[in-house]
Amino acid sequence: MIRLYGSAMSGNAHKVRIALAFLGLAWEEQATDAAARRTDAFRALNPMAQIPVLVEGDFVLRDSQAILAYLAARHRPGDWDGRTPEERGAIMVWLSHAANEIFNGPALLRAERLFDWSIDRERAAAVTDRILSVVEAHLAARDWLVGDRLTIADIAASPYLALAPDGGIDLDRWPRIRDWTRRIAALPGFPAMPGWPAAS
Amino acid sequence: MIRLYGSAMSGNAHKVRIALAFLGLAWEEQATDAAARRTDAFRALNPMAQIPVLVEGDFVLRDSQAILAYLAARHRPGDWDGRTPEERGAIMVWLSHAANEIFNGPALLRAERLFDWSIDRERAAAVTDRILSVVEAHLAARDWLVGDRLTIADIAASPYLALAPDGGIDLDRWPRIRDWTRRIAALPGFPAMPGWPAAS
Repeated sequence: MIRLYGSAMSGNAHKVRIALAFLGLAWEEQATDAAARRTDAFRALNPMAQIPVLVEGDFVLRDSQAILAYLAARHRPGDWDGRTPEERGAIMVWLSHAANEIFNGPALLRAERLFDWSIDRERAAAVTDRILSVVEAHLAARDWLVGDRLTIADIAASPYLALAPDGGIDLDRWPRIRDWTRRIAALPGFPAMPGWPAAS
Repeated sequence: MIRLYGSAMSGNAHKVRIALAFLGLAWEEQATDAAARRTDAFRALNPMAQIPVLVEGDFVLRDSQAILAYLAARHRPGDWDGRTPEERGAIMVWLSHAANEIFNGPALLRAERLFDWSIDRERAAAVTDRILSVVEAHLAARDWLVGDRLTIADIAASPYLALAPDGGIDLDRWPRIRDWTRRIAALPGFPAMPGWPAAS
């Protein structure tokens, strides 16, 4: 049985929930709040003291993008992680954006409001504007970030864009992003997340 | 022929150079300074207006981690990008760190000194300390970040750690990291980079 260390309002944990739900895998969730993340027991699982962490038998893996790459390689190889080397590279672009700009932009603006994190708001707002512009333009000619189907690029990049309104971003200004997050929410098995735009 | 848009002192471009050199591939480099990155012609290649960008025929790919993932999938599949799904995930952990903490820590401290970037130095120093601690501890029991050989995890994570002294970090405080960057520099074909600790 897969164990997922997460918390209900974590967009990073929700990336893993989306993947597990779409794959039809069973998992149990270990609610892990900020205090629990600072314990030695948790740091033995993840020295970064962050959620999510996935544990499957002896295998322990941190980082939401890494967990998506693992699940894709195990359960949807040559599909969720790219049919060609070119697609593999194109998907990785969005995993990098998810790890850097999407986290350090919209996710931080949300964390300040919801969890009282201390952030550099001006910098986070600038990063947010830049990455939203790039994603909005990218979605002009396509329904999914890479290829003609859902990949882990969509699963990695969408949660903190879908939840950007929690941080004060109006997604009606970014209609293609809003519609894409609704498209993901309309897929069979999508797990509910408070704040995610409803499937259209 | 592969074309690489980069600049001599860019650690992100150097990730690609290392991969291309180790793979024995020929490439031509298009020197792309800050002014060139702001042109419409370059933004058509990369809307983020960043180097590196790799162009191979009709295929255009931005982001150093993405380019490594592409090159691995094309030229060293099941090796540089992991022999198993577990290794794929473990490698992705370090690509995420390269995109986020290693860039927003030691790379920013270096960019402030070398390129006069405006940064939040206190935050960058805190991120640097945290990620250096995690990498140093990880290297206690192993020569390479994942498995028993070089993978794209090492190529992605090492440049801005090797070049951390450019940002005022003393690598003698982090001897395992220093020795690992020397181990990489000792591999056949390693391309020289000003500031990289000499192969031991």
